Amino acid sequence: MHSVSIIGASGYSGAELTRLLLHHPRVELQVLYAFSQAGKRVSDLYPSLSCEKTYQPYDGEQVSDIYFLALPHGEALQFVPPLLAAGKTVIDLSGDFRLKNPVEHEQFYKQAKSSEAVLTYGLAELFREEVIKAKAISNPGCYATSIILGVAPLFLGTESSIKVRAINCTSTSGISGAGRSSKTELSFSEMSENVRAYKVGCHQHTPEIMQALGTSAISPSFDFIFTPMIGSLVRGIYSILNVQLESPADSEKIKALYNDFYKNAPFVRVRDTMTEVKHVTHTNYCDIHIAHSTANGSLVIVTALDNLLKGAAGQAVQNMNLMLGFGETTGLSL
Amino acid sequence: MHSVSIIGASGYSGAELTRLLLHHPRVELQVLYAFSQAGKRVSDLYPSLSCEKTYQPYDGEQVSDIYFLALPHGEALQFVPPLLAAGKTVIDLSGDFRLKNPVEHEQFYKQAKSSEAVLTYGLAELFREEVIKAKAISNPGCYATSIILGVAPLFLGTESSIKVRAINCTSTSGISGAGRSSKTELSFSEMSENVRAYKVGCHQHTPEIMQALGTSAISPSFDFIFTPMIGSLVRGIYSILNVQLESPADSEKIKALYNDFYKNAPFVRVRDTMTEVKHVTHTNYCDIHIAHSTANGSLVIVTALDNLLKGAAGQAVQNMNLMLGFGETTGLSL
Amino acid sequence: MHSVSIIGASGYSGAELTRLLLHHPRVELQVLYAFSQAGKRVSDLYPSLSCEKTYQPYDGEQVSDIYFLALPHGEALQFVPPLLAAGKTVIDLSGDFRLKNPVEHEQFYKQAKSSEAVLTYGLAELFREEVIKAKAISNPGCYATSIILGVAPLFLGTESSIKVRAINCTSTSGISGAGRSSKTELSFSEMSENVRAYKVGCHQHTPEIMQALGTSAISPSFDFIFTPMIGSLVRGIYSILNVQLESPADSEKIKALYNDFYKNAPFVRVRDTMTEVKHVTHTNYCDIHIAHSTANGSLVIVTALDNLLKGAAGQAVQNMNLMLGFGETTGLSL
Amino acid sequence: MHSVSIIGASGYSGAELTRLLLHHPRVELQVLYAFSQAGKRVSDLYPSLSCEKTYQPYDGEQVSDIYFLALPHGEALQFVPPLLAAGKTVIDLSGDFRLKNPVEHEQFYKQAKSSEAVLTYGLAELFREEVIKAKAISNPGCYATSIILGVAPLFLGTESSIKVRAINCTSTSGISGAGRSSKTELSFSEMSENVRAYKVGCHQHTPEIMQALGTSAISPSFDFIFTPMIGSLVRGIYSILNVQLESPADSEKIKALYNDFYKNAPFVRVRDTMTEVKHVTHTNYCDIHIAHSTANGSLVIVTALDNLLKGAAGQAVQNMNLMLGFGETTGLSL
Repeated sequence: MHSVSIIGASGYSGAELTRLLLHHPRVELQVLYAFSQAGKRVSDLYPSLSCEKTYQPYDGEQVSDIYFLALPHGEALQFVPPLLAAGKTVIDLSGDFRLKNPVEHEQFYKQAKSSEAVLTYGLAELFREEVIKAKAISNPGCYATSIILGVAPLFLGTESSIKVRAINCTSTSGISGAGRSSKTELSFSEMSENVRAYKVGCHQHTPEIMQALGTSAISPSFDFIFTPMIGSLVRGIYSILNVQLESPADSEKIKALYNDFYKNAPFVRVRDTMTEVKHVTHTNYCDIHIAHSTANGSLVIVTALDNLLKGAAGQAVQNMNLMLGFGETTGLSL
Repeated sequence: MHSVSIIGASGYSGAELTRLLLHHPRVELQVLYAFSQAGKRVSDLYPSLSCEKTYQPYDGEQVSDIYFLALPHGEALQFVPPLLAAGKTVIDLSGDFRLKNPVEHEQFYKQAKSSEAVLTYGLAELFREEVIKAKAISNPGCYATSIILGVAPLFLGTESSIKVRAINCTSTSGISGAGRSSKTELSFSEMSENVRAYKVGCHQHTPEIMQALGTSAISPSFDFIFTPMIGSLVRGIYSILNVQLESPADSEKIKALYNDFYKNAPFVRVRDTMTEVKHVTHTNYCDIHIAHSTANGSLVIVTALDNLLKGAAGQAVQNMNLMLGFGETTGLSL
Repeated sequence: MHSVSIIGASGYSGAELTRLLLHHPRVELQVLYAFSQAGKRVSDLYPSLSCEKTYQPYDGEQVSDIYFLALPHGEALQFVPPLLAAGKTVIDLSGDFRLKNPVEHEQFYKQAKSSEAVLTYGLAELFREEVIKAKAISNPGCYATSIILGVAPLFLGTESSIKVRAINCTSTSGISGAGRSSKTELSFSEMSENVRAYKVGCHQHTPEIMQALGTSAISPSFDFIFTPMIGSLVRGIYSILNVQLESPADSEKIKALYNDFYKNAPFVRVRDTMTEVKHVTHTNYCDIHIAHSTANGSLVIVTALDNLLKGAAGQAVQNMNLMLGFGETTGLSL
Repeated sequence: MHSVSIIGASGYSGAELTRLLLHHPRVELQVLYAFSQAGKRVSDLYPSLSCEKTYQPYDGEQVSDIYFLALPHGEALQFVPPLLAAGKTVIDLSGDFRLKNPVEHEQFYKQAKSSEAVLTYGLAELFREEVIKAKAISNPGCYATSIILGVAPLFLGTESSIKVRAINCTSTSGISGAGRSSKTELSFSEMSENVRAYKVGCHQHTPEIMQALGTSAISPSFDFIFTPMIGSLVRGIYSILNVQLESPADSEKIKALYNDFYKNAPFVRVRDTMTEVKHVTHTNYCDIHIAHSTANGSLVIVTALDNLLKGAAGQAVQNMNLMLGFGETTGLSL
């Protein structure tokens, strides 16, 4: 049994990690560190977890082999380097180490990338070998996961004739993606029976997506516009990906390409029929459906995942499984 | 045209008042006073109102004939007396002037009743004549309205043989009842797909209900327990009233009693079939259905109303209509 | 007072029409015709309307001057011609008379366009003069309204240098758009906390949109793909319109173009800040916000409306107002 | 590994059973029988289960050791006897075998109890020894579980001085309790932002509750009225239990009584603070909180559970665990 601790355990991603790690057969959950909630019992904040531990203030003592960090963006920058120096296995769920280019980091996160630590980008479906060898993982963003997985075969698959000219994506996210929040605009009274777009064309997952697809947000090799929205749901990300190819492609060939690309990915389901959020909530799956293709090379691809699982805590555990040589799905058959 | 202003116009009740008064054919809405939101445009906070006014800081100048106060509990105590002194027509939506007994006020509102001003309790269905004559109204609470209207005929109706021994009420409220809030526990992520009871047996509407029924919370003439809950809805109050009579009563007689009691009340509908929240949202109706009666004198009465209308702003306008001699339903046929 | 009747009054659009016409100051609502619900009281199906009329079976007798038809697609084809022959004013809310090209009608509605009656397309913001002169109106579709209004200035505005190359739209609709339904997939248990796309690239509003923009679905002058979705909300349509221009356009110029195009449209609000569904529910507004524009000629335009009002019954009343010479907003200041 | 099959596997309880049994470490899920859905794949109806089995028509062949029946009320009466005759272990989730008194059965289920088979009432917290010895279990109703567990210590606990005079309960249920349904009144458009009571005073769980508490609905030893409601949520039952004792009881003594009564019950949590639905959804817990007690012997007890788990499939698996000698919580640490 490996010992694991979570830094930033009291938010929604931290709570979901707690739930997964409490029931994971190969690790023992040791310390749950929190900041403003330190001193409270887990079972007071999240009674459904039935966990009698108490959130601890973070004292820097290194008691475990493995550390998950589920902190607000910007805060992991200071916590990761000492853990790496001590040889710990680290999985960071924030955006702090996702972008290689510090210029893009600063532009999209409005903050200097103050650490030079380099973490492996933990999207196993694209970079499984790197993840297996890694000591430290930067866990992908929720929107980024739903978009990258939806188009990756077009960029990284075996069909070299396919070239993407433009992608427009519109993603609907559950409100838990904004974290355990007390903002008026995220109150039930404001968000019930509502839909609201935000950060159109400037969301911080944009450079992460471009980087994973082999290009960059600053000098992109194809047009890309991303419109995130929140709707009247707690969990889930549902992405509509409008892809314009340079030249038309046979739809059966596209489908075969996707099936081939994900043939060894236990958590991606390429589906023949429409997917919806309810198909994936409380699971670690990302569903992908090629919903439409036209004679002039347009595709509509629909993806669905649970933002707290495949979009955060579930993917983090999947990465841990690969790093430590467990079965990829261990503790994730929910 | 009478001139009206609202003090505390930027909360949910204030916004609903704004909507009603903007379209009321007999008054002109003049100034919208707000505190933390002063300086913002109404259309920025509530775009659906399409109102180009700007919230003003309250300077004490008295520009209108009629003032509605939609302030948090405790804050109206200081604003009402100068308005009364100046001879203004006042309708206060807070709990500050509802209780005659300062001891009950202090016990339930955790605050001294610092003003000796006496306002008329504005539940027109019980006290229409007093309302018509009043210069200043204390507008009833939302839960209180739904409960008092549901049992009043048993206390104040023409059937003197009926005596109530005990009432248990369980009411589900929409979350807008908590106001325009930034509390974590009222966020969409916490309240979607949820139900939560609170202040069981100690809610501040308890003494208001007892007072309206001719008794008091401190030495009540019957047993009374009230359990408020919030559910996954924005608007509405749905009350289940379990009434135990001293001796059995014929159910047809009870129904006749209710029909008679409310025969001149345009906003109370005594219904033969089950009511539900959706029947009354966006209306000023309070629906009442006598759902069950037993041979040993138990009754189950179900009531439904919209907490922001009949439970707040709608009832306030209904009171203004009566005070100023307009038709009772003017501006309220939504 | 003009006499109006509704054929197909018991569905959601019919109920919303009933509500609007009951309170409209210039017309008197006469007969509410229904089919499966004939014989039931309006107040039994829609208690919030507080209407004591009874749904009547349709006998073909022509008792009113004005007829609204709110029937399922395909059923208006037979009811409209006799009304036109009798010189009645007709407003049809179905899709039966929206498409001029019978080939497109047959392809998208899977049904022959069996009537040769020609109705005026009732999108007043584009075709106000035609609507004013019309005796018979085909009322636009809900998605179509939200999409056409969002891009019309680019096609029909005063800026001739602007050419559209492609539009991808993703629209989220409230579930009431599917009508008063008993389908399992529209049950609360299936649709709470869910999002689901459908009819991707083949929705029947596609040719209606193309026709209004001066082209056709069969041989379009620009690429167009439409992805409709339903989410966890009852009312509202929220459209994200990704527009690719042939060449870049100055974003201030675009905004000026929109403001100019809609300067006389009382129900279109071109907004400087993000709109959301809650800004327009229970109103007849269509909000438009130009959310993003890029140096290479991409635009993201966001629109919001209430599918039962501006997307159906409200727009139908707006059309009636214009046809009969009432003020355009009469009875619609909700 | 024991072989289990489910008869009536395609409804919501059946799906939840499928999920639990697929991941249960001691049994192997063999055949999923369904009726109208026979021939469809599980993954088509419930993609989140990721189960490649196909629903089979029921042919009466007995292939497993253990049978769960998740059929509509009335249908298990015919399926259970042959299984018992063949010596199978049977757990029936319907109401068909819950009531011992056929007169009560007929009155509340509107149907003769056509089978004389006697099944053990599977509420382990009250009847653990009987469950352990049983070959056939009648699994309790969802409302019944939430109400019985909330008051059982007052009837069956060690404190003989406590006598109950009356109970009024008001329970809010998630809509999944009505099954996988296509009724208009359960559609999203009708039930979003709504609350609706039904079957007030006559719900079929009434005699089940009375029987478990040692009395009967026909000649009860205390007054009992039950008001069920559905709200805007999919899962969960939240019960407010107003209990009137014959004579006052010390509140600390009551709490000690509850803690003692449930000290060996792994799925009952007697909580010091208010519980809410979100605390128990997706778990097999029943939370109980004594929210209020008065000097004259009134109690308000609040309980919460997940209607599909502790109220149906979870409790059924708990019963199986006890019958087969597994740990009581096996496969239920969700």
